[in-house]
Amino acid sequence: MTQSADRNRAVVLASRPSGAPTPANFRLQEVGLPTLGEGQLLLRTVFLSLDPYMRGRMNEGESYTPAIAVGEVMGGGTVSRVERSNNEAFAVGEWVSSMAGWQDYSVSSGAGVSHLSGLAHPSWALGVFGMPGFTAYVGLLDLAQPRAGETVVVASATGAVGAVVGQLAKLRGCRVVGIAGGPEKCRSAMEELGLDECLDHYKTDLAAELTKACPGGIDVYFENVGGAVFEAVLPLLNVGARVPVCGLISQYNEDLAPPGPDRLPGFMAQVLARRIKLQGFIVGDHYNERYGAFFRDMNTWVSSGAVRYREDVVEGLENAPTALIGLLKGENFGKLVVRVGHD
Amino acid sequence: MTQSADRNRAVVLASRPSGAPTPANFRLQEVGLPTLGEGQLLLRTVFLSLDPYMRGRMNEGESYTPAIAVGEVMGGGTVSRVERSNNEAFAVGEWVSSMAGWQDYSVSSGAGVSHLSGLAHPSWALGVFGMPGFTAYVGLLDLAQPRAGETVVVASATGAVGAVVGQLAKLRGCRVVGIAGGPEKCRSAMEELGLDECLDHYKTDLAAELTKACPGGIDVYFENVGGAVFEAVLPLLNVGARVPVCGLISQYNEDLAPPGPDRLPGFMAQVLARRIKLQGFIVGDHYNERYGAFFRDMNTWVSSGAVRYREDVVEGLENAPTALIGLLKGENFGKLVVRVGHD
Repeated sequence: MTQSADRNRAVVLASRPSGAPTPANFRLQEVGLPTLGEGQLLLRTVFLSLDPYMRGRMNEGESYTPAIAVGEVMGGGTVSRVERSNNEAFAVGEWVSSMAGWQDYSVSSGAGVSHLSGLAHPSWALGVFGMPGFTAYVGLLDLAQPRAGETVVVASATGAVGAVVGQLAKLRGCRVVGIAGGPEKCRSAMEELGLDECLDHYKTDLAAELTKACPGGIDVYFENVGGAVFEAVLPLLNVGARVPVCGLISQYNEDLAPPGPDRLPGFMAQVLARRIKLQGFIVGDHYNERYGAFFRDMNTWVSSGAVRYREDVVEGLENAPTALIGLLKGENFGKLVVRVGHD
Repeated sequence: MTQSADRNRAVVLASRPSGAPTPANFRLQEVGLPTLGEGQLLLRTVFLSLDPYMRGRMNEGESYTPAIAVGEVMGGGTVSRVERSNNEAFAVGEWVSSMAGWQDYSVSSGAGVSHLSGLAHPSWALGVFGMPGFTAYVGLLDLAQPRAGETVVVASATGAVGAVVGQLAKLRGCRVVGIAGGPEKCRSAMEELGLDECLDHYKTDLAAELTKACPGGIDVYFENVGGAVFEAVLPLLNVGARVPVCGLISQYNEDLAPPGPDRLPGFMAQVLARRIKLQGFIVGDHYNERYGAFFRDMNTWVSSGAVRYREDVVEGLENAPTALIGLLKGENFGKLVVRVGHD
């Protein structure tokens, strides 16, 4: 079932997952084709971004993004074509990015819709030029501020955020150790992204491997996974280490109060003894101040080849649920996007 | 047994405590009167500072300060008179501060010894003008950067560090809620230090009291205790909250991996969702850059009465062990110093 001009398909949240989501938590259904009011535009989704934060929105209650209601269309960043326009700021046929969610068509007043003219690959607005790339930029350069010669560790080293973190840290003159799932990703992290080392987290003795790979300890740990990687990193953090926290993908399906011992008191003692700076951040807080600088810098780096970018494209809106389930298990290789419709 | 001109008494670490220290962990003994080499000076201790970090140094192994060996003289900040001098930078009879430790006499090359000329109360160099006051200044003003109208919570609100934190936060225009042990300290925190509220942590329902006292949540929590106070603070932290961590006095006698559940994953999720900045610091890292500014500012504030200071003076080196044991239980009221000798 592909995109058509007279139907609007959407993936809605069918039920809340307990633990890892399953296909039964999603439902593909037809919803009405929206009609246009004054000043509005009709967007046709071409690319949908799939990102780890979406797991949090499937839960009830507070997270850093609001919960999606059961029966509601799944939210998400999109790259679309303007199909019709009652808004003179947007021309029919132009590429735009917005948060239209998991559906073929959506209506917008234009608020939160950005022009993408001039971008050679419109879908890259969902990755290296979008939320994931900007997350890497703000977290690493603004918050962690790595200095040349320091050791930076990044997990999900070939993921949408991690791949940019690793390359920016190399541009800053750091020793960069990545962690990724499987030999193919590790090879890519070193050969394509230029990391100094990359460890396979499927190997059992991650702690020992990481200790060997970081003989001078760790100065910056870009936290986007939590769990076993965080545990292996902790004893290696140097005095003055910075830990920007942008995600905890390994925790999203888990109970947040597992059996003890309680590691929080020991962690706090380490934060004190090692003068660690731990800082949670949500990239949405930083667009007004920093997006312009980010886009200029990233454009330079991507144009010159200093930053390389890899997409993992899944075909068809109907495959988005399985793709998100796979993302949460680390099955994607590069930034995961769904091609929902033709260019 | 008081200080004399021909004996040198010292308190040494007799054994390592397990849990709370007891008098048996200390031993008062005579050590030799040191002889002076070229360029050296003989210091006679007049005041000895007692501080929570000393508990950490009594343990084996790594902390943020090196461990004291069993049999070694207990370390600590001191205010002394120069008794004899082979060093032209120091005149006999002048007041100095240094880290001479728990003893009557010590010899120094002059390194790490500071002149105290002009200080009306030399012992204040151990408190409001010394390490505790400087800790409050760096942690609150440099790291937490409170803004007018924000809510600041500080535990040990009448302690050496906490009392300065609370008053500086008031000077910055914040709402300040203190936590202290018992009604007398709470009254003093409000009437003498000017805090908006002060809660007695001996009351059982600290979490409920704190929620009531912070209707707009908490923007800055100056962490110097850990434990139950930290637990009560956590759910109230606002988006963007800052938590400088300068001490964890409630943990110093405790097992750092108590029974579960393990609160660390949930804590990390909160750090992310609320964009919390948690930052451990040791004030010793900041003297070169910030002590000058601190001293000028603090001198202005103390002279004008904007910052008030209270000392709790214990008489006699032989009473230092009991006084430190009491400090770790919150028995002192104001900055705890031991008068070791006459002026």
